[in-house]
Amino acid sequence: KINGARLWDSLMEMAKIGPGVAGGNNRQTLTDADAEGRALFRKWCEDAGCTMGVDTMGNMFARREGTDPDALPVYMGSHLDTQPTGGKYDGVLGVLGGLEAIRSLNDLGIKTKHPIVLTNWTNEEGTRFAPAMLASGVFAGVHTQDWAYGREDAEGKTFGDELARIGWVGDEEVGARKMHAMFELHIEQGPILEAEGKDIGVVTHGQGLWWLEVTLTGKDAHTGSTPMDMRVNAGLGMARITELVHSIAMDNQPDAVGAIGQANVYPNSRNVIPGKAVFTIDFRTPDQGKLDAMKARLEAEAPKIAAELGLGITIEPTGHFDPVTFDPGCVAAVRNAAERLGYSHMNIISGAGHDACWINKVAPTAMIMCPCVDGLSHNEAEEITPEWAAAGTDVLFHAVLETAEI
Amino acid sequence: KINGARLWDSLMEMAKIGPGVAGGNNRQTLTDADAEGRALFRKWCEDAGCTMGVDTMGNMFARREGTDPDALPVYMGSHLDTQPTGGKYDGVLGVLGGLEAIRSLNDLGIKTKHPIVLTNWTNEEGTRFAPAMLASGVFAGVHTQDWAYGREDAEGKTFGDELARIGWVGDEEVGARKMHAMFELHIEQGPILEAEGKDIGVVTHGQGLWWLEVTLTGKDAHTGSTPMDMRVNAGLGMARITELVHSIAMDNQPDAVGAIGQANVYPNSRNVIPGKAVFTIDFRTPDQGKLDAMKARLEAEAPKIAAELGLGITIEPTGHFDPVTFDPGCVAAVRNAAERLGYSHMNIISGAGHDACWINKVAPTAMIMCPCVDGLSHNEAEEITPEWAAAGTDVLFHAVLETAEI
Ligand SMILES: NC(=O)NCCC(=O)O
Ligand SMILES: NC(=O)NCCC(=O)O
Repeated sequence: KINGARLWDSLMEMAKIGPGVAGGNNRQTLTDADAEGRALFRKWCEDAGCTMGVDTMGNMFARREGTDPDALPVYMGSHLDTQPTGGKYDGVLGVLGGLEAIRSLNDLGIKTKHPIVLTNWTNEEGTRFAPAMLASGVFAGVHTQDWAYGREDAEGKTFGDELARIGWVGDEEVGARKMHAMFELHIEQGPILEAEGKDIGVVTHGQGLWWLEVTLTGKDAHTGSTPMDMRVNAGLGMARITELVHSIAMDNQPDAVGAIGQANVYPNSRNVIPGKAVFTIDFRTPDQGKLDAMKARLEAEAPKIAAELGLGITIEPTGHFDPVTFDPGCVAAVRNAAERLGYSHMNIISGAGHDACWINKVAPTAMIMCPCVDGLSHNEAEEITPEWAAAGTDVLFHAVLETAEI
Repeated sequence: KINGARLWDSLMEMAKIGPGVAGGNNRQTLTDADAEGRALFRKWCEDAGCTMGVDTMGNMFARREGTDPDALPVYMGSHLDTQPTGGKYDGVLGVLGGLEAIRSLNDLGIKTKHPIVLTNWTNEEGTRFAPAMLASGVFAGVHTQDWAYGREDAEGKTFGDELARIGWVGDEEVGARKMHAMFELHIEQGPILEAEGKDIGVVTHGQGLWWLEVTLTGKDAHTGSTPMDMRVNAGLGMARITELVHSIAMDNQPDAVGAIGQANVYPNSRNVIPGKAVFTIDFRTPDQGKLDAMKARLEAEAPKIAAELGLGITIEPTGHFDPVTFDPGCVAAVRNAAERLGYSHMNIISGAGHDACWINKVAPTAMIMCPCVDGLSHNEAEEITPEWAAAGTDVLFHAVLETAEI
């Protein structure tokens, strides 16, 4: 078994970098805090005897050698970046759990046939630069690096410039690495495991997703002196489409969700009817048919809402993945490990997107989930127990060990 | 008659200070651009032979002496501050129209019995620091100066600190001045005069207003992995209250308006269900009973919407004035002037709030309106014609002249 106390200490140490305002973290991708977190992670990996490779998307790969020079490595990992008001465990547990697995291998003097590589994927969260899982997406050939470099944050800074600014453009070609398998440990970010009283989620599938960005164009006008029938109110259009998104999700129950995360009106002045609104829609479901139908209904009905109000509308897709089925062999390795270790477990579908969802396209992949309190994530109050963290990391350790062979 | 070309030149000159992004202005109150505009206005007034007084709210008073040392001055004026994406005429015409009236008096060598004072009122717009007409409100005894100094902008800077920073805290006690009468020229900011083909609006009344600021408190959570029935979505609550505000206005037609100008969700991240929403409501009508009923309905129904979604709610009034009836004598002076000059005119109710609405509480007051293209205001595309500007200024000139006596 791994050393749960050491794991917890490392989690708490990393959480000091990029502190949030309410006990969580704001260590958004490609910020100075991200650079600081990366430097600490590199130091820890090197202290554990690993060599660090970095690719041109800033993905970090810490390698522990195997005994067979021809064997492809077994990968583990997740991401160290956080939401602007994020938790201490989302992503971080998967990276530092992997580090703990390596430290435990060292403690036990275990040599594996396959090398083991621990990864920190760049910009998993997708908040600052949409879409999410950007760098694992380039690794898996879903996006080109040029396109990724051109992604802009709210201030118009590009991914490429910001990666260079923090000094983490590596020299490796992205996606050149070949993998024997890949395992990602992650907190569930939902309520199911806790409610079912299970230690471990064996992740068999992942939900598909559509992200859409909507721009409504009306006419800025005075809130007092403009008669109601002369208004072209983009804020009212945003309100109606918010309700539409909610209805689409509710009409597709169970197993479908929809919400608006970013919502901005312009000029955002108390006595100006908003002449413009820009907002983002997030639809998800594990059902491919539903996923496409939800997007299609939005694309059919939102323009009608806009037209009724005299508003111009554009709807731009900014993120998309289809529902994912993880590799049966890797999934079995996870289930076997939980079984062997005596942890209660159940099959689960990932509600969130993860780097593993893209890597699954280019290598046999599976995920391990551990519970989180009240299913709360993307919230500074996100919590897990040290026992849950240790159980998840134990299962990661054993699944990787089984796959990397002694 | 006044010199329309000189007036237009001054309007264009002032519009160079704090340019907007689309042909209008961003010269928000107590910014560096505001300070620059004030300095130019002071220079112009001094060049016209006036002496400048400034009070502790930054209100500027340019005085042209009268022949009777005991006569109270006749005031004119409006405001030089603009919306963040405002027009070149809103407020500015009333100030520079007054300047043109003084320049014309000088050209004609006219001496008046009453002194004439031209005013630039601080923070009429109320966007940066709510409420609107803040400094004329302190002048009229509606607010205390201490309270006004404590008003905060979105970045938490206070009115008092920013007034000091730009160097426009004067030495005069606010509201100590006594007025014989006050006239404010302003663009209509609505569509009626243009539609009716009238040169001049004789403003008999002003709408009343309630500004409310609503905060909804839910729970930040992951857009993907949080089941629909576990969400406490503040953005959805904001959408429903936006629709409620619209319904309240529509149910009170004719002669009532309502909209949400500022709308913000937090943390405003694509994959986070908003845990907080903060937005501003603007209700107006010339009917006192309707005005209070609209606010009361919002205060009754918005908490129900919040409760249904599990959201916390606070509703804070941030601005209020009752419907205004202007002084019959001053109104008659405006009507007589329009009549004498041969301008077509009609009675009109002001849809917007104006400094004159507060000053009306402490001195006989009236307003003159001129048309604006498509009724558009609080928009960089706000437009008037030089002819409209000149006609309004002619009427201001003659109404002031009649009241100040030769
Ligand atoms: N795991 C996680 O929260 N990833 C961010 C991308 C998403 O919104 O699913
Ligand atoms: N005239 C004008 O736009 N004043 C700002 C205050 C208001 O919103 O009515």
